[in-house]
Amino acid sequence: MTEKKFTTVEQMEQEAELLFQRARDAGIDTWKTRAEDQKNHCKFGEDGVCCRNCSMGPCRITPKAPKGICGATAHTIAGRNYLRTTVGGAAAHSDHGREIAHVLYEASKEGNYQVKDEEKCIKVAKEFGIETDGRDIYDIAHDLAYAGLMEYGKPFGYLTFTGRATQERQELWKEIGITPRAVDKECTEAMHMTHIGVQAEPEALVKQAMRTGLSDGWGGSMMGTEFSDILFGTPMPKETEANLGVLEKDMVNIIVHGHDPAMSEMVVVAAQMPEFINRAKELGAKGINIAGICCTGNEVTMRHGIPMAGNFLQQENAVLTGAVEVIVADVQCVFPALGPLSKCFHTKFITTSPKAKIPDSEFIEFKVTSALETAKKIVSTAVENFVNRKQDDVYIPESKEKAVVGYSCEAIIKELDGVTNTQVDLTGTYKPLIECIKAGVLRGAVGMVGCNNPRVRQDYSHIEIMKKLIKNDIIVVVTGCAAQAAAKAGLLSLEAKELCGDGLRRVCDLVGIPPILHMGSCVDISRILMLVTDVAKQWGINTTQLPVVGCAPEWMSEKAVSIANYVVATGIDTYLGIEPQVKGSSEVMHLITDGSRELVGAGYIIEMDYEKLGDAMIEGIEKKRAALNI
Amino acid sequence: MTEKKFTTVEQMEQEAELLFQRARDAGIDTWKTRAEDQKNHCKFGEDGVCCRNCSMGPCRITPKAPKGICGATAHTIAGRNYLRTTVGGAAAHSDHGREIAHVLYEASKEGNYQVKDEEKCIKVAKEFGIETDGRDIYDIAHDLAYAGLMEYGKPFGYLTFTGRATQERQELWKEIGITPRAVDKECTEAMHMTHIGVQAEPEALVKQAMRTGLSDGWGGSMMGTEFSDILFGTPMPKETEANLGVLEKDMVNIIVHGHDPAMSEMVVVAAQMPEFINRAKELGAKGINIAGICCTGNEVTMRHGIPMAGNFLQQENAVLTGAVEVIVADVQCVFPALGPLSKCFHTKFITTSPKAKIPDSEFIEFKVTSALETAKKIVSTAVENFVNRKQDDVYIPESKEKAVVGYSCEAIIKELDGVTNTQVDLTGTYKPLIECIKAGVLRGAVGMVGCNNPRVRQDYSHIEIMKKLIKNDIIVVVTGCAAQAAAKAGLLSLEAKELCGDGLRRVCDLVGIPPILHMGSCVDISRILMLVTDVAKQWGINTTQLPVVGCAPEWMSEKAVSIANYVVATGIDTYLGIEPQVKGSSEVMHLITDGSRELVGAGYIIEMDYEKLGDAMIEGIEKKRAALNI
Repeated sequence: MTEKKFTTVEQMEQEAELLFQRARDAGIDTWKTRAEDQKNHCKFGEDGVCCRNCSMGPCRITPKAPKGICGATAHTIAGRNYLRTTVGGAAAHSDHGREIAHVLYEASKEGNYQVKDEEKCIKVAKEFGIETDGRDIYDIAHDLAYAGLMEYGKPFGYLTFTGRATQERQELWKEIGITPRAVDKECTEAMHMTHIGVQAEPEALVKQAMRTGLSDGWGGSMMGTEFSDILFGTPMPKETEANLGVLEKDMVNIIVHGHDPAMSEMVVVAAQMPEFINRAKELGAKGINIAGICCTGNEVTMRHGIPMAGNFLQQENAVLTGAVEVIVADVQCVFPALGPLSKCFHTKFITTSPKAKIPDSEFIEFKVTSALETAKKIVSTAVENFVNRKQDDVYIPESKEKAVVGYSCEAIIKELDGVTNTQVDLTGTYKPLIECIKAGVLRGAVGMVGCNNPRVRQDYSHIEIMKKLIKNDIIVVVTGCAAQAAAKAGLLSLEAKELCGDGLRRVCDLVGIPPILHMGSCVDISRILMLVTDVAKQWGINTTQLPVVGCAPEWMSEKAVSIANYVVATGIDTYLGIEPQVKGSSEVMHLITDGSRELVGAGYIIEMDYEKLGDAMIEGIEKKRAALNI
Repeated sequence: MTEKKFTTVEQMEQEAELLFQRARDAGIDTWKTRAEDQKNHCKFGEDGVCCRNCSMGPCRITPKAPKGICGATAHTIAGRNYLRTTVGGAAAHSDHGREIAHVLYEASKEGNYQVKDEEKCIKVAKEFGIETDGRDIYDIAHDLAYAGLMEYGKPFGYLTFTGRATQERQELWKEIGITPRAVDKECTEAMHMTHIGVQAEPEALVKQAMRTGLSDGWGGSMMGTEFSDILFGTPMPKETEANLGVLEKDMVNIIVHGHDPAMSEMVVVAAQMPEFINRAKELGAKGINIAGICCTGNEVTMRHGIPMAGNFLQQENAVLTGAVEVIVADVQCVFPALGPLSKCFHTKFITTSPKAKIPDSEFIEFKVTSALETAKKIVSTAVENFVNRKQDDVYIPESKEKAVVGYSCEAIIKELDGVTNTQVDLTGTYKPLIECIKAGVLRGAVGMVGCNNPRVRQDYSHIEIMKKLIKNDIIVVVTGCAAQAAAKAGLLSLEAKELCGDGLRRVCDLVGIPPILHMGSCVDISRILMLVTDVAKQWGINTTQLPVVGCAPEWMSEKAVSIANYVVATGIDTYLGIEPQVKGSSEVMHLITDGSRELVGAGYIIEMDYEKLGDAMIEGIEKKRAALNI
């Protein structure tokens, strides 16, 4: 076997540079130039000690002005800012989950959306106490969706999915008062707490951040994942490709961008219709090519093998190829910059959500009840736009890598069943994985998640840390932009076993998996929660004892802060490569690191040097192993 | 009749200065010194063009850097900041209303809380479609409270109280898509919209600000008002006094501070118990004196005639007298500064809400189920603390003014009934008021609301503008800190008619009311909504046509922005004496002023000069009159 050459970050950067040059030639800005213009960020903001929560201010904490006008200290201000940041993220994820619940509510046998995973529908409905015996699956789905929607606003009680957590976590959350109640209630109460003259105690603010985060991870996001699986199918491993090289010079290219699968799934369906394929051919194209960006990309790749064009900081690059007929977005992480940028090309930028209108885009409202019609309109727009492409001006970078995607928990268990001796052991468990970890064949596991951030070299931390981990026999699970970084570097391919230590390589060979498992979009970090929880349960230890950590080396969005909160509150240390903006408060900084460990048995480790960050994780994992005497 | 001397702002300032000197002597800061230290506020923040909604930033808009890293323009950034500000306020008000709904849910004949206004309970229950005939009032109250709690999170439909609005408003809100849905849903969706890469269109952001505001005014706040009336009685006119002179040198002084009446009502009850009064006497005091600050002050004054010690910027002054045994707070507008300040005196600073713990306070959790016990503990703490007072060091300013407070809509109608010729006209309407306005005896009405803000001289704008208005025969209704400013200046006294024009003075004489009517706390701006709405209905015109405006000359809190949004969306022009922090965006500035008038028939008028602000209101009212040909 010849040794595989993996795409390097240097190659990606060279290709990107050619695209950025096209922007410069067109006289248009990109994130590169805007990040340069924005350099020397405000220190008060970076340190979390600027308070804008009333119009007496803004107040900024300095040695000369150690308190805001109301008397709020750096600790109160940083704590409030941190909580509001968490709310922004939890609200975004959870509102995504709510949209999916509404789609499930409207699902019907003959409608735009059907129940694809009936088994999961019944399983989850039972968790909600819904009668399932002998009932029509759509009646069950309808009741489940309603129960799910009530999780956002029920006046009493806690979130149903918290019952999935380990007994130890459930008791701890209860004891320290952070068991999440209705999702929207946590968000709204947190906004109240951060109003002038309300919560001033840093610990209470940090605890509410955890509680709000938990309402996302064990609430909105988990419902987003489960209901999406019910509607669109639980992901199973699929082969695909990643990076801008997936765009096709001879085909109509449609980029689906954003987060919610409801829209992108329908675009995928419409693009397969002969009427549009034929029309594309009439217009000189060889067919229709769909590629995804951001979490929408993860959603459609793990269910349909749709290739991934790239991650967060690559959204402008796609347009800059000149080869994209339509870039269609729903919500979250969509650059407003795409508006003016698309005007410099033939690309039509279509927005679809009333929650995310963007100047200089064409707005086509996407509704559940007319989903397919709208998707057809979008696809038709793309096909008809092919003739406007300046084919001579197209530059599609060559790089693309093969990837295997779609490792839901169910898929992982299925793979493990394949190596289980059914004469001796039960199937349907993580036992083979646990045994490998106990034996030291695998040293542990890392969940790598999060975004891109111009504060660090794009994808570099993701890729270099992943390589280091797998070389050290640590298996990695990924979602979101981290997953796409891995995919672009070839790390989701079966060949990536070449980069592994002996133990992990043996596991990859035996099970037939890549060393880095694609678990989906950012809301699908709920899958990682369940993986970790069920491994702990089957192992018979607490989540805090597992040789498992989380890592977000290039995070930028508020969603990442919400995630970090719920991962830590679930008992998993979380390693951050970008500083949370609280360092102007020693108290809050303590509370989210060591203080958090006292409170929930896990906390943040913050390290800007990616090498050190990777080493720290390995050290953390080895410490957990030592404590377990393995 | 000798002419009354009204307390002037100059007098108040002289007295305050003596108190601030005591702080300087004690080496402790006050808002005066902190506001000085914080001078030269950040221009980016003031202009609304600093974005901290992801960790790529903060990004700040300058001519050299006209876009954030994501491509967000000044318009997107200012719009998002404005919406988040609105959410902070709507969440605070509405969460207050939620607490009251929980109290109502727990109300019982023998419990801590009873239904005091059965008539209102039945009336409101009917609005919610609750069966009332022949049912026990507590069963009705329980169902009503549950229905109210569901208004925060129901998955479908709009807020019930929006059905109270004029037909014209209901239709307009529906047409432009701003009819509010569940309160928490609006807050959470707004937080989602303002996340990176979501809503970028300024108009959509401003519309969501209106919708979120409406969920406060016609939802959370209105429930707060109605349920408080049901529990504690609908306010009727009461005589009281206001300003720090209400503190008693010879008595145990307890300051109730914050917003939610549930706690303060119980403190009032406990303080009347012989066991504590006797104990106070044993310890050398003549009794127990309760005084209120901020909206808690408004709540207990309008139901019990409890004197008001002052408003927002006077909270430290109360402690600085050295005469306060306990200052007890629940939520909102409570200076964290009270913690260290109270340590310089014998004053015990007690916090009671888990949502608002404050360093250097004693935390005694207040729960509905043990409310009276907790209140007794608080009163007892105060009584026992009397012996620690350094009586020689006490300085209580002399100023206080008489005031009549408690003009709920029901009370106003009752007063009007008193001047109705029952032979000719129906009672129970605003008809006499409408006739006075039509005839020009009254030129119109102004709702003056809002806070204090060190950006302007404390209370000065409130008081000077009110004087100007009543001199011009414009009747004024007030809530919140504005109400307390009026009270301190004697403008809520019957003698204030001396300062009125001939028309308004005649009305005051005839009806027996002051020219400025105290309508309660900030959540009670919902009373002003209903007053305006019912006047419009009975007049047969739209709210936008009424010669009525709103004014917040010294606002500072996010709640004020939520209020301004719902007042404007209800069709009432709103005059602001402090700039909303959006002026870095011409588009958003347009959208909240003239653009808003195109959208909902009303908008903001922003004017920092209080004289001009008053003149502009008079001009605005006269224009409305001219359009009505009256």
